[in-house]
Amino acid sequence: MTNQPRSHLTDDPAFVLHEGGKLNVVSSVDVNDNEGLSLAYTPGVARVCSGIAETPDLVDTYTWRSNLVAVVTDGSAVLGLGDIGPEAALPVMEGKALLFNQFAGVNAVPIALSCNEADAIVETVERMAPSFGGVNLEDIAAPRCFDIERQLRERLDIPVFHDDQHGTAIVTVAALRNAVRLTGRGFDELRVVVSGAGAAGVAVTKMLVDSGIGDIAVADSKGVIYEGREGLTPIKEDIAQISNKAGLRGSIETALEGADVFIGLSAGEIPESVVATMADDAIIFAMANPNPEVHPEVAHRHASVVATGRSDFPNQINNVLAFPGVFRGALDARATDVTEGMKLAAATALADLVSDDLAGDYIIPSTFDSRVVPAVAAAVAQQARADGVARA
Amino acid sequence: MTNQPRSHLTDDPAFVLHEGGKLNVVSSVDVNDNEGLSLAYTPGVARVCSGIAETPDLVDTYTWRSNLVAVVTDGSAVLGLGDIGPEAALPVMEGKALLFNQFAGVNAVPIALSCNEADAIVETVERMAPSFGGVNLEDIAAPRCFDIERQLRERLDIPVFHDDQHGTAIVTVAALRNAVRLTGRGFDELRVVVSGAGAAGVAVTKMLVDSGIGDIAVADSKGVIYEGREGLTPIKEDIAQISNKAGLRGSIETALEGADVFIGLSAGEIPESVVATMADDAIIFAMANPNPEVHPEVAHRHASVVATGRSDFPNQINNVLAFPGVFRGALDARATDVTEGMKLAAATALADLVSDDLAGDYIIPSTFDSRVVPAVAAAVAQQARADGVARA
Repeated sequence: MTNQPRSHLTDDPAFVLHEGGKLNVVSSVDVNDNEGLSLAYTPGVARVCSGIAETPDLVDTYTWRSNLVAVVTDGSAVLGLGDIGPEAALPVMEGKALLFNQFAGVNAVPIALSCNEADAIVETVERMAPSFGGVNLEDIAAPRCFDIERQLRERLDIPVFHDDQHGTAIVTVAALRNAVRLTGRGFDELRVVVSGAGAAGVAVTKMLVDSGIGDIAVADSKGVIYEGREGLTPIKEDIAQISNKAGLRGSIETALEGADVFIGLSAGEIPESVVATMADDAIIFAMANPNPEVHPEVAHRHASVVATGRSDFPNQINNVLAFPGVFRGALDARATDVTEGMKLAAATALADLVSDDLAGDYIIPSTFDSRVVPAVAAAVAQQARADGVARA
Repeated sequence: MTNQPRSHLTDDPAFVLHEGGKLNVVSSVDVNDNEGLSLAYTPGVARVCSGIAETPDLVDTYTWRSNLVAVVTDGSAVLGLGDIGPEAALPVMEGKALLFNQFAGVNAVPIALSCNEADAIVETVERMAPSFGGVNLEDIAAPRCFDIERQLRERLDIPVFHDDQHGTAIVTVAALRNAVRLTGRGFDELRVVVSGAGAAGVAVTKMLVDSGIGDIAVADSKGVIYEGREGLTPIKEDIAQISNKAGLRGSIETALEGADVFIGLSAGEIPESVVATMADDAIIFAMANPNPEVHPEVAHRHASVVATGRSDFPNQINNVLAFPGVFRGALDARATDVTEGMKLAAATALADLVSDDLAGDYIIPSTFDSRVVPAVAAAVAQQARADGVARA
């Protein structure tokens, strides 16, 4: 009786695949007779409830919570579609839950909220938190996504991770680490230009700064962000303070002249004439989907290493390389937080997986490389213990 | 990697069974290559999201929502354990979700909330509602459970059902219908005494009044409820208005003298000497768990028909006979509400299943009778259409 489609509305294979949804909740124990029922339900279950009431820590042993992540959105920044609302966001959240399940054996449940204000989202997630072992924030618009994550990390003692920020940052930093290794330079020698100051742009910038990048300029729709630029949001003021040592102003095109690295996390196209002004041995990560800011063919004329967000080109920078392993590791360690150290450990583990076969068209593992999740999870769990946030 | 117990803390089989929890979320589609990923996730999923954004109704066809129920509690009235909080309530909520899955193919997710006030619970469930096709309220203390359900029914266009009220009422009314048939009387001739004015007592009373019961007296810890009794809560004032035509006052023991039916929904024991004062052909439903208000052996000395809430005696009045079929039917009909008519239809369908083999020790189907869910679901869906609340 489950997942029966009501009608067949289109021949688009994406719609056909989505009929009835992509998830089911199944029981991991069978209840076929009164004896089973009396253990899994009343009266036996009452003893387990009493045990948890007496020793709260037991909830992680005797319920499914410790392996369960809420995939929370308000539908305000879904893929490239923008603010399409919670119902229309559900297929993405189900997809995320499916990937958690298939890649890392993590149970995940989509929670699409009808409220948009940061405080209301924080309040709602906090109220639901007893049911979950972790929170993956997804497709929530900037800048409120930053405030929501900060507040939830402060208030909850379970991992909270905004994938659009940190998943992207982890995979980008891993890929850049290998690209830099290939071209024989150090992070401290590089001048980077990031296009986009949304969730991903901000997180990538912060992580690159933490990783000792030489200099990094971030451009939004008004051009390069610098200290004192009029009308900066608080988060962009932060960015202005930690980036752009060179004091660049003006358009992204100007900033790209002589730059070593371009990281595209928005939608605007960069003309070939501008790409041509970058430094020798340039590195171009054009990650906008479905249309990269620089087409890989064009990029290759001017750069040593090229990556995109697409699966039909080499070097796909895909969040699915990060979030399943990050949560697997955090849940395995019963971590109370996802620290900056854990994110960097994930990036390092990911980069290290390809070091033997490193090449211009292989700077990051494939999405379906079965070594990825165990390696990332182990590194994240180990760092959680080193950072003192592990409970197991 | 899922459901790995961290340690083995006790030999109690209920604890052993609960290690790692009782549920998993699994994907109903496989994503083994880039092609699968590009349909179930980006970029294919974006077309489905856009489709729902344009035609909101499609969310029920192309997500798992239309077959998904939130099992919501605040942990304030869990089984007979009282207010043990949301974490300790989780095993019961998982058990409920397991039964939804195994009995009716309904997906269900436990949502245990850390807030207790009615308005906060309503607000939270309303914010989460875009993610779900129905809401099963569970183990929320009276009287706030009444207010919460009323508000949510008003605000949401999906089925909202407080099982402790209506699940119990449906099965009790079904059993009483058959008990009355056996003893050759009509509902309108009966004088009923209900022990307990919590969620179950209130719902059973209302449903019996709607079913044309002769007279019904409800007793709480202070004795029989009557109009004008001091300190009545609003819900008990309602009960006083619709019950106790005879104007009884005083203890439940007094009320039971000459009564035809006793329905026990609290914990207090009724002495045999009081049971002996009931009318000829008395009907005794002693449903307190684990200790019935009247032990079945004692009850049989003075009554024609006896039922309990326990599986080790005949005539088990168990909510699992109702809620899976009620939600199956409501979801199949895409009902926007669970009307009183739908609840009565469920009770009738349940009662009718045993009419051929009706006997003193068989007034209600067994928990594992595979005819139950399809019969209840069909009756509920049909009534939803008759009541104008069905969208399918």
